[in-house]
Amino acid sequence: MGDLLRIGLIGAGTIGRVHALNIARRLSGARLVAVADPVPEVATGIGDQLGIPAVYGAAEELLSDRAVEAVVIASPAPTHAQLIRDAAAACKHVFCEKPVGLDLPVIDLALEATARAGVTLQVGFQRRFDRSFRQARDLVAEGLIGRPRLVRIISRDPQPASIPYLRSSGGLFMDMTIHDFDMARFLVADEIEEVTALGAVLVDPAIGREANDVDTAIIMLRYASGALCVIDNCRQAAYGYDQRIEVFGSEGVVMVGNEEMDRAVLVTADGARSASPQPWFRDRYADAYAAEMQAFVDTVRGGRRAEVGGEDGRAPVAIALAAQRSARERRPVLVSSVEPAGRPPR
Amino acid sequence: MGDLLRIGLIGAGTIGRVHALNIARRLSGARLVAVADPVPEVATGIGDQLGIPAVYGAAEELLSDRAVEAVVIASPAPTHAQLIRDAAAACKHVFCEKPVGLDLPVIDLALEATARAGVTLQVGFQRRFDRSFRQARDLVAEGLIGRPRLVRIISRDPQPASIPYLRSSGGLFMDMTIHDFDMARFLVADEIEEVTALGAVLVDPAIGREANDVDTAIIMLRYASGALCVIDNCRQAAYGYDQRIEVFGSEGVVMVGNEEMDRAVLVTADGARSASPQPWFRDRYADAYAAEMQAFVDTVRGGRRAEVGGEDGRAPVAIALAAQRSARERRPVLVSSVEPAGRPPR
Amino acid sequence: MGDLLRIGLIGAGTIGRVHALNIARRLSGARLVAVADPVPEVATGIGDQLGIPAVYGAAEELLSDRAVEAVVIASPAPTHAQLIRDAAAACKHVFCEKPVGLDLPVIDLALEATARAGVTLQVGFQRRFDRSFRQARDLVAEGLIGRPRLVRIISRDPQPASIPYLRSSGGLFMDMTIHDFDMARFLVADEIEEVTALGAVLVDPAIGREANDVDTAIIMLRYASGALCVIDNCRQAAYGYDQRIEVFGSEGVVMVGNEEMDRAVLVTADGARSASPQPWFRDRYADAYAAEMQAFVDTVRGGRRAEVGGEDGRAPVAIALAAQRSARERRPVLVSSVEPAGRPPR
Amino acid sequence: MGDLLRIGLIGAGTIGRVHALNIARRLSGARLVAVADPVPEVATGIGDQLGIPAVYGAAEELLSDRAVEAVVIASPAPTHAQLIRDAAAACKHVFCEKPVGLDLPVIDLALEATARAGVTLQVGFQRRFDRSFRQARDLVAEGLIGRPRLVRIISRDPQPASIPYLRSSGGLFMDMTIHDFDMARFLVADEIEEVTALGAVLVDPAIGREANDVDTAIIMLRYASGALCVIDNCRQAAYGYDQRIEVFGSEGVVMVGNEEMDRAVLVTADGARSASPQPWFRDRYADAYAAEMQAFVDTVRGGRRAEVGGEDGRAPVAIALAAQRSARERRPVLVSSVEPAGRPPR
Repeated sequence: MGDLLRIGLIGAGTIGRVHALNIARRLSGARLVAVADPVPEVATGIGDQLGIPAVYGAAEELLSDRAVEAVVIASPAPTHAQLIRDAAAACKHVFCEKPVGLDLPVIDLALEATARAGVTLQVGFQRRFDRSFRQARDLVAEGLIGRPRLVRIISRDPQPASIPYLRSSGGLFMDMTIHDFDMARFLVADEIEEVTALGAVLVDPAIGREANDVDTAIIMLRYASGALCVIDNCRQAAYGYDQRIEVFGSEGVVMVGNEEMDRAVLVTADGARSASPQPWFRDRYADAYAAEMQAFVDTVRGGRRAEVGGEDGRAPVAIALAAQRSARERRPVLVSSVEPAGRPPR
Repeated sequence: MGDLLRIGLIGAGTIGRVHALNIARRLSGARLVAVADPVPEVATGIGDQLGIPAVYGAAEELLSDRAVEAVVIASPAPTHAQLIRDAAAACKHVFCEKPVGLDLPVIDLALEATARAGVTLQVGFQRRFDRSFRQARDLVAEGLIGRPRLVRIISRDPQPASIPYLRSSGGLFMDMTIHDFDMARFLVADEIEEVTALGAVLVDPAIGREANDVDTAIIMLRYASGALCVIDNCRQAAYGYDQRIEVFGSEGVVMVGNEEMDRAVLVTADGARSASPQPWFRDRYADAYAAEMQAFVDTVRGGRRAEVGGEDGRAPVAIALAAQRSARERRPVLVSSVEPAGRPPR
Repeated sequence: MGDLLRIGLIGAGTIGRVHALNIARRLSGARLVAVADPVPEVATGIGDQLGIPAVYGAAEELLSDRAVEAVVIASPAPTHAQLIRDAAAACKHVFCEKPVGLDLPVIDLALEATARAGVTLQVGFQRRFDRSFRQARDLVAEGLIGRPRLVRIISRDPQPASIPYLRSSGGLFMDMTIHDFDMARFLVADEIEEVTALGAVLVDPAIGREANDVDTAIIMLRYASGALCVIDNCRQAAYGYDQRIEVFGSEGVVMVGNEEMDRAVLVTADGARSASPQPWFRDRYADAYAAEMQAFVDTVRGGRRAEVGGEDGRAPVAIALAAQRSARERRPVLVSSVEPAGRPPR
Repeated sequence: MGDLLRIGLIGAGTIGRVHALNIARRLSGARLVAVADPVPEVATGIGDQLGIPAVYGAAEELLSDRAVEAVVIASPAPTHAQLIRDAAAACKHVFCEKPVGLDLPVIDLALEATARAGVTLQVGFQRRFDRSFRQARDLVAEGLIGRPRLVRIISRDPQPASIPYLRSSGGLFMDMTIHDFDMARFLVADEIEEVTALGAVLVDPAIGREANDVDTAIIMLRYASGALCVIDNCRQAAYGYDQRIEVFGSEGVVMVGNEEMDRAVLVTADGARSASPQPWFRDRYADAYAAEMQAFVDTVRGGRRAEVGGEDGRAPVAIALAAQRSARERRPVLVSSVEPAGRPPR
């Protein structure tokens, strides 16, 4: 088994465990050889469950472990960019959960570090690996809908995270919409130039009062091509996890709806009844999470460029920053206006 | 308006009124000039409502009315065949509700009469004019499913007719399945050679005890080509009128499901809820009834052969007779075995 | 037939003919007694087809016809408001196509005129009579989705109207989105306070260059309750007439999708194929047009208040004016800011 | 890991490998400790791939391995019943693929052997573990469709197996329909009393000529309650693996359709296009296979009675034998008539 990619996991919270289980059970070509988490029970818990040889408290220790060839960064968002730099410095390949960082200069340092070290960097936008969204993207890329005009993305969570989580999350646009900003770029292979965001507190007043955030939003985007995109988000949907997309173009439209929990349909005098959508992201994207990690392993082992690389991690952060400014200043905001001075155009 | 086809209606019950309203309001090229019904209030009621010039008690009177060019026969089933003969004798074109007769010799006399008189005869199989079933038939005819192998037809009524009606209806196979036998022929343009029927009394014991009939049935058919068909029927479906078809062939399958009363879908924590199918035949086949009558008018005025002619009216009766025998004798029955002696093969 | 409502039609173009045919054939309780159209062949053409007793060239003549009790105004948009005033002055009840006028002061004069004359005024928002949208509205009104948070409306035409039509139409927001503004109010019984509109020319450069209009747009609305709405529009959809709505609330979501031309589904090795949506408004809203006119007739004859009255005609115009300003000035615009000075709040 | 159930696999063909991979990767509570296959490369191939400690050529060797606590029998159908007896004699718990045997006396000996040995016997009807079919069954069991009247089962394979396989398979009814006979019992918890089968050779003449079998069939069943069931089968469906069920009762109907490969829907001027159903059983029932094996492990470890036990394995074989006789003799056949003399009623 010497040629399996040896992976270390940094951060064994909800999403870290998803990745750990996939690496341990569903992937081929990789092996989980180390885990680091500041909470000792969490680290040893998953270490024991999956028989991981090395268990650490600090990421630095894991990064010094020479058995580790690649790391999966699933720690809190504010730590991401620095951990990428540290991993690059230790010559480890990096899979990093979104967002790669909360501001652009720090992300740029991280990207430069991985480029300099020549290591792979893949960002955790698992929706790109959902077979239905991927099929939609492929149909668009094949030209079957003609020139894109409107992209529509719906993303609603089943329930809001805790106020403490929301407070440190970077806000709705950075924490939640960032997946949709990525999807907007993924579906039509075009760049976002302008953002107009409208937020509201309709789910829980505490989200406004205590987390200083909105819980419901509509965001309009304008692409470089002139095409438009609209995203709607809500932190709470009583019926489950609502994830739909649509790309409308000059020759047609492609749509992806939700996946229900089962396919049984009951029809009685009261009408037809069927199942709700999948309840949450682990269910809805179970296969996508496995596929993105498999892609990371294959990319590293094949020495190829990551399909979702550093620039793909950076771009949605810029859009999110523009959305934050748009909502605050109540006007359309150019994405270029949030760029650090002196950043050369891509 | 001298060139409008002048139609007389014989029998102003449920289905007669459907035809009357269509002729009066939805059709072009025709005019309802007479109505006959043995119940005086029924005849004058519809006469007044639609401003029909001539109102009769007896069909004979209507058939003697020289203003009448064509008749719609919507009287009880046992009267159909003789009325067709009478209408042919009076040189009127005939649209006759199904079944054209309850046994084959009498139907043959009726068909000969219309052929001799040179009048058009169209039989009331309105489902052939349903745009979805028609589209399915067209896709099959274009070869898109390849060679047909299996035809499936579901036909379930929302509630059983009254025991007196059922008693005089000719029984489930003649009264209800006859539409499905027609659909079996329509969908694949092939003839039925053998029938195996299985009936049960599962809705109401009175249907067995008092009407000597079954209320639920499965009927297997074998086509001349060797392909198979299965029909299921029930006199009662709590959720409305269930009308579905499917044709499966060597290259694919075409399916037509029910039409709901509306398209609103409600999704809550309890799952998704949508509307039931259309409640009854007048709703489900509203457009089909208008289209079949328009086809009749156009056929007569254009001097063309009826799309659903006498042989199309006769064939399902033969299949129904075979089904009755199969259910009684508990064995497969050849359709040819119910033919009167000496009938030349088609 | 003395108690039938005697209706005169002003304007026998596309939509005027839809109403004329419905009054002549599908409605009960009304009769078309006069038609006026400046193009003589158009007026006499429909007059002959439907046997309308009186045919006029000028609306004034029709309004002087004492046989006319109510008028259907289906002339070009810029004439609507004045015709309403003239009809009110002649004591005729009024059904007026949308928009009731192109600016608010002239609409206010029209509304005052009908109020003073005590005549019924109904505005032609036929989508409110679509059974699926109505069912959605009813489910919302019954509280089944809880408190509304997001309304989504998609409205895409199969192809753009001619440049001359577009030039005189009042622009996309006034001509096309106005139906969606009405739908936004109808679905949740809440008023729109703020509009943010984003338009683009993606279908045909001539629409921008020659009609000085956009052909594709996203419009975000904020309700008085704080709920949000997003509308997307396009003047051209290759696959037909795209009309969908969704209302998302604290307890669930209700959605209405398109209606296909037929229900046949073909599944082969190439995947599943089914029909496109209805091709155009006359198909999609055939029943809704009949239902709205029946409601008008019933309202006038029953002496009731119109279900879609003058204020319902005025409100979407105000929203459209705000949308025009928002698109022009690239910022959110309060609907109250387009109100004429001194208009008292409702 | 001493408390993991130690499983040995007998037969490492297609279905054996499905089970092996599930035990090795997806299940908790079990471990694959041995494999036996007469083809050495097959046995060592999977042994190496999954790191199975013991690899045997003969089942007998595996059954003598004291490390093995339970066996999964996935060898050819004719060997099943004897292997169950041998496993029982060796005091191993048994999971056996369907059919448990090809005739009833030999099955009865196998069932007696497991009963005497006090070991668990579970039969491989994985469809019972499909979440949609299970949900349908649950809705029926909860009484939501009232009293069942009609059960409909569609089961069509994507392509026929090889002629040699078909020759030794026991024939369509025993090899393929047996799953549907099980489903017929599972869905409504009722026993089948009578079978009427109609078969045809429509896919490949060689299936008739060389394997002496049919490739297309309709089978009607009558339950003890009087309810009816109809199954249709075909060995080849161009569009994939077609697996649908429906239970219709006095209060409603529950239906389960196919699962598509993805959810993207493309709508253009040519209509709507979406994905075909899952291609084959490993895709369609991937989760069901894992769930049934998990249930086996849990049952053995929990000392509980198997959810799909010996009688559930035997009953569909009896129905299949009756179907074979019905198709041969062209008449309805009582299931009781294929019972060995002296078998006491259940």
